Amino acid sequence: MTVNRIYNFNAGPAALPLDVLEEIQASFLDFKGSGMSITEVSHRSKWFDDVINDAVVRLKRILGLDDRFKVLFLQGGASMQFCMIPMNFLANGKQADYVNTGTWSTKAIKEAQIQGKTINVAASSEDDNFTYIPKDIPFSEGAVYAHITSNNTIKGTQWDEFPETRGVPLIADMSSDILSRPFDANKFGLFYAGAQKNMGPAGVCIVAIRDDFLEMVPEDIPTMLKYTTFAAKNSMFNTPPCFAVYTVQLVLKWLEETMGGLEKMAAVNRQKAEMLYGLIDASGFYKGTAEKSSRSMMNVTFRLPTEEMEQSFVQEAIASGLGGLKGHRSVGGCRASIYNPTPLKAIQALCEFMQEFERKNG
Amino acid sequence: MTVNRIYNFNAGPAALPLDVLEEIQASFLDFKGSGMSITEVSHRSKWFDDVINDAVVRLKRILGLDDRFKVLFLQGGASMQFCMIPMNFLANGKQADYVNTGTWSTKAIKEAQIQGKTINVAASSEDDNFTYIPKDIPFSEGAVYAHITSNNTIKGTQWDEFPETRGVPLIADMSSDILSRPFDANKFGLFYAGAQKNMGPAGVCIVAIRDDFLEMVPEDIPTMLKYTTFAAKNSMFNTPPCFAVYTVQLVLKWLEETMGGLEKMAAVNRQKAEMLYGLIDASGFYKGTAEKSSRSMMNVTFRLPTEEMEQSFVQEAIASGLGGLKGHRSVGGCRASIYNPTPLKAIQALCEFMQEFERKNG
Repeated sequence: MTVNRIYNFNAGPAALPLDVLEEIQASFLDFKGSGMSITEVSHRSKWFDDVINDAVVRLKRILGLDDRFKVLFLQGGASMQFCMIPMNFLANGKQADYVNTGTWSTKAIKEAQIQGKTINVAASSEDDNFTYIPKDIPFSEGAVYAHITSNNTIKGTQWDEFPETRGVPLIADMSSDILSRPFDANKFGLFYAGAQKNMGPAGVCIVAIRDDFLEMVPEDIPTMLKYTTFAAKNSMFNTPPCFAVYTVQLVLKWLEETMGGLEKMAAVNRQKAEMLYGLIDASGFYKGTAEKSSRSMMNVTFRLPTEEMEQSFVQEAIASGLGGLKGHRSVGGCRASIYNPTPLKAIQALCEFMQEFERKNG
Repeated sequence: MTVNRIYNFNAGPAALPLDVLEEIQASFLDFKGSGMSITEVSHRSKWFDDVINDAVVRLKRILGLDDRFKVLFLQGGASMQFCMIPMNFLANGKQADYVNTGTWSTKAIKEAQIQGKTINVAASSEDDNFTYIPKDIPFSEGAVYAHITSNNTIKGTQWDEFPETRGVPLIADMSSDILSRPFDANKFGLFYAGAQKNMGPAGVCIVAIRDDFLEMVPEDIPTMLKYTTFAAKNSMFNTPPCFAVYTVQLVLKWLEETMGGLEKMAAVNRQKAEMLYGLIDASGFYKGTAEKSSRSMMNVTFRLPTEEMEQSFVQEAIASGLGGLKGHRSVGGCRASIYNPTPLKAIQALCEFMQEFERKNG
């Protein structure tokens, strides 16, 4: 039986590898001979232990994390991390730096301020509508951490290289580019990512936390808001989001065994992004919205000559089997999110559609 | 193709209706003609709007909730509610009552105390190892709420009728018996339930909150910990756990359309529990651990003459296709969790096995 599948350019929840979806489907009534669905097995069972342990091992191997790091599976998305980070690490008298590169950074800053924490916005690209990533940032000596957003889904910008911080540990929201390219984890005290872009379905947020950051966690905050609670129990203080963790495990396996690891994945991602930006730059019809040196390899944002044409573009794309190309409701325009699972042939199909649309309307 | 399926007596994550699992499986690569999996569609799409809106409408209809109640889908499980409830409703000078009926109540009390909130343990059954539900409780006049745990998964006890509170609104953790029987929601300011027992997979917690409780929420707490954040956005302030919400929607549909609604579901649940307790009471071999008047219709806890026999019982049951009968690791013994999705024929199979085991070992 053939199944109707589109090319999915959603910003998140987003495309997943077809191999992964097919494996979930095939085992959905009987997971590994348990006689139960993965949604029915106990999180205290050998079946689920194998799932979560394999996910942790794979994530650490793929990202080259050493024994100082613990990998946690939490709920509440990156938005809950905006609240937990200052709560866990900014005791009275402590201070942190934040770099503001768009909507998500702005929210992270707000959640620290709501709690009355002392933070310093060390740099911001708000002066040019968040179309670039700031350079030569004067980070504060003595800051507990410097918080950045590695990729900005809405504005289509991304840190090409992570900043020099004069020894201040980085904390990064990597929701929309984790696992898209190798990076040096040694600079980081913590990084986190909602799974629903590059790594799995909605409903789980991955946190990698270094031992010196775990040691900062105070005793007197609510149990479910302490990183130590989850670090001590392999993310199973209470029932974890089992299905989401399982899907992440399969995506990690796909990344290692089908795609050949992070270097190869990054090469494919570069090829995908260059194909799309190349078309945009060669065209007088499509116009990229981010500064070239700050462009995201994950979220390609662009405009057409008029809003009416943008509407037609999105609608005709859907009719051609290309979904999710509408820009974020807060900024308009068009956006192609091209995370790891989006195959090269999806970009090729999009490029052909864009050329044809320009030919007819340009 | 026949699929190997066991009878699943897990305490949670627990059995789901086979019809629901089959529907998820069949549509897993192409949800409603979208060309995407339910795990890939945007939470801002018409497809997901239909899912979450139908889930809300069904839950309100099944439980007879009027317009004063909002139904929310949150992350973090019931454990996160233990923290959010006092944070949202106990401003300085306010006080709440808690009834302690076991492990989960104890945790709820602890999370209020960690935050320095003023609470009063109005009654406790700790004096007899939580084997009963307290009666004639002296609730405090002027308490903002009185918190109870409607069913105690670990100790196998359940409130037969909800207590008279002299006008104090009830808040209940209903994780393990929501949707198992009708109740009068008018007494409640809020009730909540992790989905992974009677309602769906792990990864989503349902909260029903009354308008006067929403009005108590303070401005100055973190955004992700405020009920108003989710009430204002139909649970989509940030990306919700889409797959878990979808599964809950299907379970609610199954409850209404296949099982015929809550009254009929409750009748089946009574029949299941009576069959199992009847066998235990008629036997000199099996011994129920909860006081008869406080017995749970959802979690039937019992002991065998020796721990060695309990181990054999659990192992031989698995070999006979009956899974999840081991008691909670904190109390030992045996436990059959018989939530809504567990069919009558599973109880019949369990009773036959228990009679045969007694005949061989009694």
